[in-house]
Amino acid sequence: MDQVRFGVIGIGSMGHMHMEELFAGKIPGAVLTAVCDIKPDRLEWAKGVCGDSVSYFLDSRELIRSGLVDAVMIATPHYFHPIIGIDAFENGLNVLSEKPIGVYTKKVREFYDAARKSGKAFGIMYNQRTDPHFQTIRKIVQSGELGELKRAVWIITNWYRTQSYYMSSGWRATWAGEGGGVLMNQCPHNLDLWQWIVGMPNAVYANCDFGKYHDIEVEDDVTAMVKYPNGATGVFITTTGEFPGTNRLEISGSKGRIIYDDGDVYYLKLAMDERDFTAGDRRGFAKIPIESDELLPLDGAGEGHNGILKNFTNHILYGEELLAPGYDGINGLSIANAMLLSSETKKWVELPNDGEEFWELLQKKIATSKAKPDAGIVLDTRGTYGNK
Amino acid sequence: MDQVRFGVIGIGSMGHMHMEELFAGKIPGAVLTAVCDIKPDRLEWAKGVCGDSVSYFLDSRELIRSGLVDAVMIATPHYFHPIIGIDAFENGLNVLSEKPIGVYTKKVREFYDAARKSGKAFGIMYNQRTDPHFQTIRKIVQSGELGELKRAVWIITNWYRTQSYYMSSGWRATWAGEGGGVLMNQCPHNLDLWQWIVGMPNAVYANCDFGKYHDIEVEDDVTAMVKYPNGATGVFITTTGEFPGTNRLEISGSKGRIIYDDGDVYYLKLAMDERDFTAGDRRGFAKIPIESDELLPLDGAGEGHNGILKNFTNHILYGEELLAPGYDGINGLSIANAMLLSSETKKWVELPNDGEEFWELLQKKIATSKAKPDAGIVLDTRGTYGNK
Repeated sequence: MDQVRFGVIGIGSMGHMHMEELFAGKIPGAVLTAVCDIKPDRLEWAKGVCGDSVSYFLDSRELIRSGLVDAVMIATPHYFHPIIGIDAFENGLNVLSEKPIGVYTKKVREFYDAARKSGKAFGIMYNQRTDPHFQTIRKIVQSGELGELKRAVWIITNWYRTQSYYMSSGWRATWAGEGGGVLMNQCPHNLDLWQWIVGMPNAVYANCDFGKYHDIEVEDDVTAMVKYPNGATGVFITTTGEFPGTNRLEISGSKGRIIYDDGDVYYLKLAMDERDFTAGDRRGFAKIPIESDELLPLDGAGEGHNGILKNFTNHILYGEELLAPGYDGINGLSIANAMLLSSETKKWVELPNDGEEFWELLQKKIATSKAKPDAGIVLDTRGTYGNK
Repeated sequence: MDQVRFGVIGIGSMGHMHMEELFAGKIPGAVLTAVCDIKPDRLEWAKGVCGDSVSYFLDSRELIRSGLVDAVMIATPHYFHPIIGIDAFENGLNVLSEKPIGVYTKKVREFYDAARKSGKAFGIMYNQRTDPHFQTIRKIVQSGELGELKRAVWIITNWYRTQSYYMSSGWRATWAGEGGGVLMNQCPHNLDLWQWIVGMPNAVYANCDFGKYHDIEVEDDVTAMVKYPNGATGVFITTTGEFPGTNRLEISGSKGRIIYDDGDVYYLKLAMDERDFTAGDRRGFAKIPIESDELLPLDGAGEGHNGILKNFTNHILYGEELLAPGYDGINGLSIANAMLLSSETKKWVELPNDGEEFWELLQKKIATSKAKPDAGIVLDTRGTYGNK
């Protein structure tokens, strides 16, 4: 294969961008050959953009079986990611899914089974993994340079959305249509990066407020605490109701501290491990010598969505290592599910778990879910999914 | 009265400093006339410093009944603050207590009853209330300038202590001697300022780790979340096991955000209330115009301990309003007690409450408490109790 033929499924707020970038030839080795959306007017619009070189489908099953594509980019509402993905794997296609990988882990496990069985390439659109800031932080933590993890706090409250955002599509911010709020739509990136950098917590406790700042069913304000296997703790705070909000990730280890704050990374390195220092000190209020404390020279936010598309394409064509394997999608999702479940039960939720208890909660929520009018607006999302 | 005659009770790590400042005449209108400590060698040391103009006592009851003092500054281990304070009020003295006002709220209520009955001046050494940074933040929040409170997060992890600190006195960091760890010793300031600025939460959930970073019985690592009566949320994170740690208080309101970060105050003011903006917007991803976003020109940390001593003296002499009334002491203490109780029960603790449940927990903890050797060290605390 010297070219990957892509079909984009779902050309709403995110998908129409992927379609345009692929069509414009921005992804070397990739070519757009098919587009699918359940809304005829959107397909009409797509025809106006891409013309006759691309085929158009109202049903993803037809696109998948058309013989026109080697890979699908799935950008539908979240519930359909595993459903369509499984169908694509079963038909021998490579699958790149928008985040989140699904709404609940039980279904995601079926997705993973299909992926493994097919042996095809499986990626997830974790575009923020291309960001050199987070890549650098991860390297410092994962290499052991920061020492033993003590704490990982992320205040990520800069996902401000007004009421009209939630009115743009009928599925948005409903239990039946989206399956969650800020945890499901905005935070998959942060939940993924959090665990990508410091690893998975093994227990989660959270308070979620539903429709606190918007007239919606789902959570728009979350405060969560977590515990890690080594005893370290973490906090995750998010909302779509604060402006301008904060984006600050602070990670403390026994050898130093690293802070991501709105595009800047500050790295403080101790001259010795705090665990060794405290054992040897006799002065009570002693301070540990600091080796360095600096703003790291990092620039730009990486290649973002196109970076993931390129990497996925190169993975298929040349075996390049995947930056965001689809199999990683369950990690952040497990944390999100645990937060919602804990908020409901008011108990710590252990991780990993089989996802059954969250699935039951979700069914209860869906049963109460009310349809809302669909304004049919395709939002211009450019500039809204970065890290700042 | 044209001069307040002070007796300092307890001249360990904090008290010896109050003694020296009073003796040096640093507090206009105040004069040091008596000093008390249960340790004869400390009294010997005090005699060497203050000489014959001051009287010395091994028993606080004798100092209180000596007729030599109008006011006592109590700087004993925490459990004795209410016990000695009540004795002083019952003997017609004015009382300034070191923080915390006590170890559990049940006892503090008795302290308050005695204070009210006496009608004498009652203060608490909340020296950080003299800090212009916190005074300014409080004014902005309390005046309504920040709008409706949404969130108040304090990461206060810069209370680093090595193991040798905890070995300096036998009572330190034991349930029987101190009644708690970082919440009882280091954080009373922060818990007080937090509630002084944004008001009291009405529910608390916490995870406290005991002896996590030190060989001690009590908590040295705490993560807590709170809820406020208006639905706002908060987080409080502290430890004595991180270096250099962070001191960052972030308060979000519907009209802006104010951040205290290690001595700097950043105030961002929105051009309109977010609640009004979201209702009127039709663009989904819209941004609220920012009226101003600046580092406030604030300097210094205020007069600290001496500021409180001066204010207390002026209150007695001239009726100056108390900056830190003793009656405020129960607020931060209630939060601290609730954090420990919640961590034990793994349930949200409502505030206010009668303190009975925490008292029972404390008795259980005390029953397991082990004495530890007393190194008899008087720590030099100068420079350790500021806000940086």
